Amino acid sequence: MQKPSIPKGTRDFSPEEMAKRNYIFNTIRDVYHLYGFRQIETPAMENLSTLMGKYGEEGDKLLFKILNSGDCFAGLADAEIQERNAVKFAAKACEKGLRYDLTVPFARFVVQHRNEISFPFKRYQIQPVWRADRPQKGRYREFYQCDGDVVGSDSLLNEVELIQIMDEVFRRFGIRVCIKLNNRKILSGIAEIIGEADKIVDITVAIDKLDKIGLENVNEELRSKNLTEEAIAKLQPIILLGGNNREKLATLKELLAASETGLKGVEELEFILNRTDLLSLGTPLDLDLTLARGLNYYTGAIFEVKALDVQIGSITGGGRYDNLTGVFGMPGISGVGISFGADRIFDVLNQLELYPADSLQTTQLMFVNFGEQEEAYLLPVVARIREAGIRTEIYPEPGKMKKQMGYADAKKIPYVALVGENEISEQKINLKNMVTGEQRLVTTDELIGLFRP
Amino acid sequence: MQKPSIPKGTRDFSPEEMAKRNYIFNTIRDVYHLYGFRQIETPAMENLSTLMGKYGEEGDKLLFKILNSGDCFAGLADAEIQERNAVKFAAKACEKGLRYDLTVPFARFVVQHRNEISFPFKRYQIQPVWRADRPQKGRYREFYQCDGDVVGSDSLLNEVELIQIMDEVFRRFGIRVCIKLNNRKILSGIAEIIGEADKIVDITVAIDKLDKIGLENVNEELRSKNLTEEAIAKLQPIILLGGNNREKLATLKELLAASETGLKGVEELEFILNRTDLLSLGTPLDLDLTLARGLNYYTGAIFEVKALDVQIGSITGGGRYDNLTGVFGMPGISGVGISFGADRIFDVLNQLELYPADSLQTTQLMFVNFGEQEEAYLLPVVARIREAGIRTEIYPEPGKMKKQMGYADAKKIPYVALVGENEISEQKINLKNMVTGEQRLVTTDELIGLFRP
Repeated sequence: MQKPSIPKGTRDFSPEEMAKRNYIFNTIRDVYHLYGFRQIETPAMENLSTLMGKYGEEGDKLLFKILNSGDCFAGLADAEIQERNAVKFAAKACEKGLRYDLTVPFARFVVQHRNEISFPFKRYQIQPVWRADRPQKGRYREFYQCDGDVVGSDSLLNEVELIQIMDEVFRRFGIRVCIKLNNRKILSGIAEIIGEADKIVDITVAIDKLDKIGLENVNEELRSKNLTEEAIAKLQPIILLGGNNREKLATLKELLAASETGLKGVEELEFILNRTDLLSLGTPLDLDLTLARGLNYYTGAIFEVKALDVQIGSITGGGRYDNLTGVFGMPGISGVGISFGADRIFDVLNQLELYPADSLQTTQLMFVNFGEQEEAYLLPVVARIREAGIRTEIYPEPGKMKKQMGYADAKKIPYVALVGENEISEQKINLKNMVTGEQRLVTTDELIGLFRP
Repeated sequence: MQKPSIPKGTRDFSPEEMAKRNYIFNTIRDVYHLYGFRQIETPAMENLSTLMGKYGEEGDKLLFKILNSGDCFAGLADAEIQERNAVKFAAKACEKGLRYDLTVPFARFVVQHRNEISFPFKRYQIQPVWRADRPQKGRYREFYQCDGDVVGSDSLLNEVELIQIMDEVFRRFGIRVCIKLNNRKILSGIAEIIGEADKIVDITVAIDKLDKIGLENVNEELRSKNLTEEAIAKLQPIILLGGNNREKLATLKELLAASETGLKGVEELEFILNRTDLLSLGTPLDLDLTLARGLNYYTGAIFEVKALDVQIGSITGGGRYDNLTGVFGMPGISGVGISFGADRIFDVLNQLELYPADSLQTTQLMFVNFGEQEEAYLLPVVARIREAGIRTEIYPEPGKMKKQMGYADAKKIPYVALVGENEISEQKINLKNMVTGEQRLVTTDELIGLFRP
């Protein structure tokens, strides 16, 4: 007899975990709705022609490929099969693969449905993605992404609204965060003025270490990456950039005076800060030049959210891109988007114990089952209670009291009702508070009243 | 440049479709919760050892198999590869497959987590499944199932509650339905008394045609299936079984007097009818001996829901089974479950136009964008409106009025707000009802009040 298990890197979600996950997804969903975002879903399987070449060579290897059904050897000559070349074989024996992220399917969706969509298109999407990564702590082969994007609008108001959305989502969660901001154009401007356009990543990685290793070692690292002494000298005020966001922007404006692109980036960030200043956000915004995520993709704003009270990587991120759909033959569609990291948010809420009690509780009331007569008496009573919206169970069989109470305990049901012969003759319900142990005799109407919010 | 498409038999869901689907799933979910069912999720990929052999030979062929990542030829000898035998190849080159239904993963879940589950376990699960079926109208290769099951309890109260759940779900949808009931034990009893235990399916198929082809032809069909004249004679009162549920049961009790199993089935159905009589269900229950779904699986009650006002197959079905988990080495776990057919319910709601208006509407209010000044003025105003829970957008750029209004139209936004120089100086909002065309000048507080439910 086989002992059942699931593929490595995948997970089952228990009722408790699902309640928590639904709380997370519903919170994010509600906030997206508040800003006019609408949900779409795309198939788990995409044509491999849609997916291949979009995630780099490494990404292609991490795609889960689906063997063609029927005769998978159909399009292959004997010689091709005998080569035992897995990559070449898959190119012919597999037409479909599992979604690797939500961005490429979204781009494909926009192009395929361009005539039905009214732009600007504000969409969100909450679906699992699959990656054949080596599983490790906190890294799964199946995990959910929660993406929100606005495409077809260059307005920076979209950046402002996405910041508001992140602010509101984490306010609702009760997680203290800071939102880090950067702009790809500023990074390009820096590279431009020091004449090292291709070293942007090396530079941001080195600057990021300032607090840990000190200025001397940062400069040493830059030298080891073959930056000229002149470039390093020009970088000094940028490495040491300090003060608040406004002060940083003022310094950058001077330093980047010779770079049109750089100044454009400063201007964009200024606009965003001017607009968010009009709002009473609970979240601090922090201009951080070391923020360099998605550099081969983002062309304007870059966002990242860090939790303040838990040591964990970024829990949300995003940015602006210029050309979402060019690869599918539809140029000129720019957009800006964010992605909430549901698994990390799950961990943060767990660590800080921030789940609201009512998000975890399903059944509110359980009736003990004393036998056939009592059960028959209870059916219409329970129907009335459920009609009032109270989530109610009758234990399905007249088992031992200990077993029935154990069931209520295990399910964390807060109230248990006992209706035996006496209660039936009095037309009452004996209601027990499972936390305090307190018992009281009530009518059905009184019971319903007690559960009203 | 590639023209993007999706694999045949799969679908994209637009915002409108997602709103409808979410309405369906949320309604089903709410009713499950009302009865104490809790959600689980299992991975899209299962080990093929979990899936193979559970759906018959045909089912095995319909499994989507995932090519092992890395070297898929690793475990294969040259000779095996040269055979070009797709089935044998897949057995070694694919360890994982996509979920084919929710029942087998649920059985696997119960066995794997037996020590964490408190029985009776009431679980629901709403997830997609994948089948390499030939796609045709109404049949997809990716579709959602919405299953609810109670396992670890033999009590017929579970059957009663599942009937209540079906009744309540379709009441909320506003779909008039009838719930057909049968019991596998009655069918076994019939086969027993006429001495044709292995012809149950032939018999129910033939009986089902009575209305269409008449008694003579039904008997002819039975003869063609090699039933003896004696057996056919004994079947006559069953073929002609009429009257209401109680009358049918009374007749069956007599006819099945010699079959212990048959009488047990009658008794079970009687219990269910006695219990549901205590409830004021809106749905008629109809004892139907031709109901023979899942005969190789169900051992007691069999359910099926038919829409009364639309010509379509069954839109929900289920039944009781004896041995969910035996194949995974955990015998003795019985259960009863139902599965809502989300795709067909979607079609029925569409045909009858039963979607509530507020289930389809996302944004409630859109502010026209007149330019930088107005946008800056509006930001804190809109923030206050959103704080009151009103789903609000500002058009992200000061485009042509026609374009902005077109956007509101396309998104079916019911109210548009215009705030230009005059309104700003008066601290008012010009609110336009997009259906009636009526306009009125209101303060922010008045506007918020208008949207209060």
